[in-house]
Amino acid sequence: MANVPKPVQNLIESFERLPGIGPKTAQRLTYYLLHAPRSEAEALAKSALEMKDKTVVCKTCFNIGETDPCWVCLDARREQNVIAVVENPLDVLAFERSGFKGLYHVLHGVIAPLENIGPDQLHIREILNRLKSEDIKEIILATNPTMEGEATAMYINKLISPLGVKVTRIARGLPVGSDIEYADETTLSRSLEGRKEY
Amino acid sequence: MANVPKPVQNLIESFERLPGIGPKTAQRLTYYLLHAPRSEAEALAKSALEMKDKTVVCKTCFNIGETDPCWVCLDARREQNVIAVVENPLDVLAFERSGFKGLYHVLHGVIAPLENIGPDQLHIREILNRLKSEDIKEIILATNPTMEGEATAMYINKLISPLGVKVTRIARGLPVGSDIEYADETTLSRSLEGRKEY
Repeated sequence: MANVPKPVQNLIESFERLPGIGPKTAQRLTYYLLHAPRSEAEALAKSALEMKDKTVVCKTCFNIGETDPCWVCLDARREQNVIAVVENPLDVLAFERSGFKGLYHVLHGVIAPLENIGPDQLHIREILNRLKSEDIKEIILATNPTMEGEATAMYINKLISPLGVKVTRIARGLPVGSDIEYADETTLSRSLEGRKEY
Repeated sequence: MANVPKPVQNLIESFERLPGIGPKTAQRLTYYLLHAPRSEAEALAKSALEMKDKTVVCKTCFNIGETDPCWVCLDARREQNVIAVVENPLDVLAFERSGFKGLYHVLHGVIAPLENIGPDQLHIREILNRLKSEDIKEIILATNPTMEGEATAMYINKLISPLGVKVTRIARGLPVGSDIEYADETTLSRSLEGRKEY
């Protein structure tokens, strides 16, 4: 854009780089911050940096938290023999809201050949290590009910079911093609209750 | 939300404070930055602060720029006797794209009694000062074609038309109820061309 002050243009571009934010929305957000008190821009800047600097990936379950092990792995009151395998850290938050009390394993993605993401780019092998070192009775495959999520669940089932552990898949009470992080708590609870053995 | 790591929760909340960003979008943006390289969060943080720190309000036209006077007021090649009165700095950018070559006067809002914004909260009085100190031939009232925009234009017209300056209103070629910052260049050009004397 001609003549836009550089600092304003820079912020518009930073916003535009975020997913789902188009040029008009980016302008709107920038304009809003232009009139908001400096403290608000500061809070955004600070929280963006702190989110990167003060969070660590848990080396056990690959969830994101302020500590390693994360707050889930540290909590002795949780069921220690059930692991829900999820795609990303926001899915952990969704299951937390649904009242799930087991452990998690965060894959950080799904198998997506078109995007060149194979099993080795995800934290799949690490499930095998956990099955060896921890006393796990059940693995709940809780990837999204999408093409990639189903394929990833199937892949993991094939890999770990020979080890004799019980492998379940959350019930397809979730509308197929939707995204776990957007599901309401009740639907998620029901999909946990209705899980079937592979 | 229970159990969300504090730095993650903080960023979600910062995003939620922005207009038009709901809790789900805020989560989505946060999750995106969680996986993006640190440089991207840094760029966002830096540009948010620099936008506040490296921009100043022009004391002549109240446009926002890197200098005071702003880049428009400093540009001697522009028509020095036509002023477009606009609601906010993004409207300046919209008129710049439409090829307008005069000066601006940014009100930073509109008269909105329901929100307790009266003429004194806006830069309306300052138009009178400019009419005294500058050689202005025409004031183009270029507020949004909304209820508040029309009322503000009418108020300014009543205030300055006794001074003998030509006061025009941009043509209502713009769909009523819409927002200038979203108009396309052609519609904006047409609304400038079709302006009528009050």
